[in-house]
Amino acid sequence: MANKTIRAAVLGASGYTGADLIRLAALHPAIKLTALIAKGHAGQSLAQVFPHLASLDLPALVTADQVDWSAVDVAFGGLPHGTAHTEIAQLPERIRVIDMSADFRLRDPSLYAEWYGGEHSAPALLEDAVYGLTDHYRDAIKSARIVACPGCYPTAVLLALLPLAKAKLIALDDIIIDAKSGVSGAGRTVKQNLLFSEAGEGLSPYGIGNHRHVPEIEQELGLAAGAPVRINFTPHLAPMSRGELCTIYVRLAGKTTAADLRQALTGAYADAAFVHVVVEGAIPATQHVRGSNYCHIGVFADRIEGRAIVVSTIDNLVKGSAGQALQNFNVMYGFDETLSLEQLPLFP
Amino acid sequence: MANKTIRAAVLGASGYTGADLIRLAALHPAIKLTALIAKGHAGQSLAQVFPHLASLDLPALVTADQVDWSAVDVAFGGLPHGTAHTEIAQLPERIRVIDMSADFRLRDPSLYAEWYGGEHSAPALLEDAVYGLTDHYRDAIKSARIVACPGCYPTAVLLALLPLAKAKLIALDDIIIDAKSGVSGAGRTVKQNLLFSEAGEGLSPYGIGNHRHVPEIEQELGLAAGAPVRINFTPHLAPMSRGELCTIYVRLAGKTTAADLRQALTGAYADAAFVHVVVEGAIPATQHVRGSNYCHIGVFADRIEGRAIVVSTIDNLVKGSAGQALQNFNVMYGFDETLSLEQLPLFP
Amino acid sequence: MANKTIRAAVLGASGYTGADLIRLAALHPAIKLTALIAKGHAGQSLAQVFPHLASLDLPALVTADQVDWSAVDVAFGGLPHGTAHTEIAQLPERIRVIDMSADFRLRDPSLYAEWYGGEHSAPALLEDAVYGLTDHYRDAIKSARIVACPGCYPTAVLLALLPLAKAKLIALDDIIIDAKSGVSGAGRTVKQNLLFSEAGEGLSPYGIGNHRHVPEIEQELGLAAGAPVRINFTPHLAPMSRGELCTIYVRLAGKTTAADLRQALTGAYADAAFVHVVVEGAIPATQHVRGSNYCHIGVFADRIEGRAIVVSTIDNLVKGSAGQALQNFNVMYGFDETLSLEQLPLFP
Amino acid sequence: MANKTIRAAVLGASGYTGADLIRLAALHPAIKLTALIAKGHAGQSLAQVFPHLASLDLPALVTADQVDWSAVDVAFGGLPHGTAHTEIAQLPERIRVIDMSADFRLRDPSLYAEWYGGEHSAPALLEDAVYGLTDHYRDAIKSARIVACPGCYPTAVLLALLPLAKAKLIALDDIIIDAKSGVSGAGRTVKQNLLFSEAGEGLSPYGIGNHRHVPEIEQELGLAAGAPVRINFTPHLAPMSRGELCTIYVRLAGKTTAADLRQALTGAYADAAFVHVVVEGAIPATQHVRGSNYCHIGVFADRIEGRAIVVSTIDNLVKGSAGQALQNFNVMYGFDETLSLEQLPLFP
Repeated sequence: MANKTIRAAVLGASGYTGADLIRLAALHPAIKLTALIAKGHAGQSLAQVFPHLASLDLPALVTADQVDWSAVDVAFGGLPHGTAHTEIAQLPERIRVIDMSADFRLRDPSLYAEWYGGEHSAPALLEDAVYGLTDHYRDAIKSARIVACPGCYPTAVLLALLPLAKAKLIALDDIIIDAKSGVSGAGRTVKQNLLFSEAGEGLSPYGIGNHRHVPEIEQELGLAAGAPVRINFTPHLAPMSRGELCTIYVRLAGKTTAADLRQALTGAYADAAFVHVVVEGAIPATQHVRGSNYCHIGVFADRIEGRAIVVSTIDNLVKGSAGQALQNFNVMYGFDETLSLEQLPLFP
Repeated sequence: MANKTIRAAVLGASGYTGADLIRLAALHPAIKLTALIAKGHAGQSLAQVFPHLASLDLPALVTADQVDWSAVDVAFGGLPHGTAHTEIAQLPERIRVIDMSADFRLRDPSLYAEWYGGEHSAPALLEDAVYGLTDHYRDAIKSARIVACPGCYPTAVLLALLPLAKAKLIALDDIIIDAKSGVSGAGRTVKQNLLFSEAGEGLSPYGIGNHRHVPEIEQELGLAAGAPVRINFTPHLAPMSRGELCTIYVRLAGKTTAADLRQALTGAYADAAFVHVVVEGAIPATQHVRGSNYCHIGVFADRIEGRAIVVSTIDNLVKGSAGQALQNFNVMYGFDETLSLEQLPLFP
Repeated sequence: MANKTIRAAVLGASGYTGADLIRLAALHPAIKLTALIAKGHAGQSLAQVFPHLASLDLPALVTADQVDWSAVDVAFGGLPHGTAHTEIAQLPERIRVIDMSADFRLRDPSLYAEWYGGEHSAPALLEDAVYGLTDHYRDAIKSARIVACPGCYPTAVLLALLPLAKAKLIALDDIIIDAKSGVSGAGRTVKQNLLFSEAGEGLSPYGIGNHRHVPEIEQELGLAAGAPVRINFTPHLAPMSRGELCTIYVRLAGKTTAADLRQALTGAYADAAFVHVVVEGAIPATQHVRGSNYCHIGVFADRIEGRAIVVSTIDNLVKGSAGQALQNFNVMYGFDETLSLEQLPLFP
Repeated sequence: MANKTIRAAVLGASGYTGADLIRLAALHPAIKLTALIAKGHAGQSLAQVFPHLASLDLPALVTADQVDWSAVDVAFGGLPHGTAHTEIAQLPERIRVIDMSADFRLRDPSLYAEWYGGEHSAPALLEDAVYGLTDHYRDAIKSARIVACPGCYPTAVLLALLPLAKAKLIALDDIIIDAKSGVSGAGRTVKQNLLFSEAGEGLSPYGIGNHRHVPEIEQELGLAAGAPVRINFTPHLAPMSRGELCTIYVRLAGKTTAADLRQALTGAYADAAFVHVVVEGAIPATQHVRGSNYCHIGVFADRIEGRAIVVSTIDNLVKGSAGQALQNFNVMYGFDETLSLEQLPLFP
């Protein structure tokens, strides 16, 4: 693999996931960023849009039309859902795609239409797409043309629950996911409720019962368990920029104990570079993974007999988006999975 | 009631609950603060300990020994649990006590010993104490000598659940309380995990399965339901100073619906000055009650059939402590319950 | 004054200054809020726009056209500059106006045009307007038809400097004002740089050398000193919602000392209800005035001989806007200046 | 230089500067961390003290006595001032020292005694020490045995002012430095004013006129200018964890303009890897350097003729401490200066 260079484009370079992808990919020894696409900012330098990236010597932002696609091997997608599938459908077929939007995550186009408010314009591509939860779909990702990176919440939830669902250690009809996210999870689009003065010093649930990450979680849990799953998923907006923590309340199957869950998770991730089951007694915290590609998972007994609590935390923009995208890139192109993702969490 | 003056002492005037009590009580037309007790700060002015209260013309901080108790009618207790019951046991019997510590909340002294790590030194007083959840124990509070104000979490939880438990609308063996609190809930004592650099931009659970507010919640729910209750209570520390929000996941009894819960709550609090069931579609947020004595409650259907979600939010230092204490004072002395508590939430 | 009721309208009821005015005025015993005007939200209830005010029983939001102006005695203006003067010019002349915008603060219309990018549409009204820095223009405010409440920064700066300029204790050509403000100072309009993810955990200057509060400060300092003044004013955006602190670096006139400055300020505000010169050794902090109408001022010697440092802090939405507006209302209508402004700072 | 391994010890591994040094050094290809010293935590794993570093396979914390110093080539010092010089004086002379404390920064021991409240116990070592402002003392650092890394504030200030003082572009008797820092600058020691509830949503100056970074700044400016310098330095605590921004008000020498300052700075740092003079019109912000070793500097004209404003920002724990320490390590051992410091700023 030595010395090979892969030429990459970033679609949606003016959003937070685009920026974090650039932040990480710019230091990847084998990636050459040849096109940064951001329709509304075409002509601007990256430094104008993201002054923290001013030290990088990269081409100015362009529209998709202005790109010489023959000089692109792989495209990272940081576009909003709804826009992503249209743009991606127009890319030459030889270009591999690592998409961070929601547009290729749901295997069933009718589910997409139901939750995302419109027909999917590229159902054929949907069939090819591989769900990019690296630690669970590594083999399929290797040869995929389109990798649909999971949403931030689904990443945290599925890393915690997939091994338990597969091993039938938990009841499937009683999964309650209380999720908390920092504000960057909502992207860079300006909305009143995301203003510092509104979101600061405050906390509230949102999207109760109808958050778009629900079908994605149910799809993957259902596949793992071999049976339909219906979950409670209640996200909350917390006054921080980065970080996501899911507190998951499960009913144990049969005589399963919390210790069994812990063992299953420890086993599942024994070789995982970034998924870390914390030692007994330790408690996961978003601070401990901030800015990194790590996922920390803890398992706790519940006061109510027959139940347990699983806590999972990630940085929503890294493991929950750009970091996992780059990890998938490494898998797809045969690099060490940790390449350019070694950076340790930033604390304090 | 016109023109009567009640002379009040504050035990623990250098803590956050003490300070918030002073903030509110200083403007109460019938209260004269005659003694501010703070052992470690005796001799200092209130302004030295709390510069935000520098405009008040109040006596300097003293030790309990230095107080002329004959000039005191009522004592507000802002001491930590464990210390409170000893100090309060020494007060002249004619002084009424409104305690904000945990020391008089548990009716069973053995439960106290189990959860608070030591024998209760005044079990006789414990028998006299009335649980100070104003909206549910108004009549008993009127004539109580000792009012044990509920903890902040129990206040938010019980206001949401007591009417539902009483009306047998929810299953008692499946109550999951995911609670989030600002940092002031931990008091003014310096601890590393409460530093800005540690708690800022981060979120994590703590005290999983063994938080001291558990027995208090179980006691009151059990009394309301007429049967023992065992809950899941999982608190989280959120990066804000004030505010507490509990997301409560309940299983509905029989054919009960979320709408039935809403109706029960709306009915229960039709005349409550401070408990507000938000209109359908609105979502409670800590920002909306900040600095005020209000509690906002919302009810939501769950994706999982047969379940519902109840969300309750308060300012932990006001309705969760000093505000409710003052509300109890108003009840005890025959004032309008809202006197000196009219202040609206501070947003943004 | 007993029992009189003044009927008030609020122009711009959907902004932060409008909301804070309503928060305070709703509890004023003599104010009846008869019209809440917010063009973009007409038809909505106040609770929809500001859920923290849901407990108030007030009329729904309307457009200015829908108001029965004969039922209005006084109008509080919370509109943005540029819009305010046009709206206010259309009000019946018998309605007194307490404006919180910048539109009536600059006595010289050409200065207005220069700094606010357009001709002033009501120069005649400008002549009538009184600058509403309560503690310095109390007498003129009493009988004013239009009171132009100062900007938040000018309030903090002028309360600190006017007595010093008047007494010729400081050099007029060497005033350096380093100002720091919370994000609510920028209003509720959505802008990318005000998002939590952008402004959180960060600090930066803005509007260096050309912030619109400059001419207002220079105007008033010049009037006080009897000579033109040119200042350095460098504001910074700090990651908090409320609060403003100005650190002012001055060169002392002749043999003046920092102690002389302190004495001049203490004397000037001996009878002021809300302006508090902190004791020597204490340091002003935005936390100590949060949510209140107080201004805290401190004076400090400088390491550089012949210089001193004056620190002034306010809550930008209260003393810096709605609180001072209400204080002016009290002055205009003969009420105690502190009526409905007694509320103590909220700390923590 | 290929393949050489330098064995490093960290003194004070349980503090924030120690942790950030470990975070960066652990990924340095030539550093092997052989000893982590933290007296109060000896026996604990690094993960217990800093869960965010749990993925590292490093030795447990020990006391200095337990270290086999023959297996150490270089020691990074993260101890508090006062403790550092005593501990460092006991190290074998063959061990090179990169100290992040204040103990070897002041060249004059009497100045040390005056500002740090005690005699310096190792004045001989003081003579050998090189001031570790990499960009200005690169040559001396190469061969130094002891490198005294500058304080965080001095780093930001001196990078901005040294080239200007050397070129005699600014007056030396009129330098006003208004500095703002995040809370991590105060270290991990628990103090009441650093609690989230105290420091959050608030801003205030501290150490006015007597902050310990004053003599260090005056020493270096004086050396650069060839004349004694006396500065105003007023630090403020801002509600964020990381980041430091200094707004520096200078009087221009003779006919110097702000453009001249900009040119001098651009020239001085043309080859600097981490010091970046932002383009005209751009404004430095702590967010843009967060977590990185970059320093961003901007120059602005002042409204007051003959003056200018220089703004400098760094991450206090990286360029202001551990990052610069590692940069000095690279210089001392002949590595590329940027090795293991390439990590880009974390935004949002």
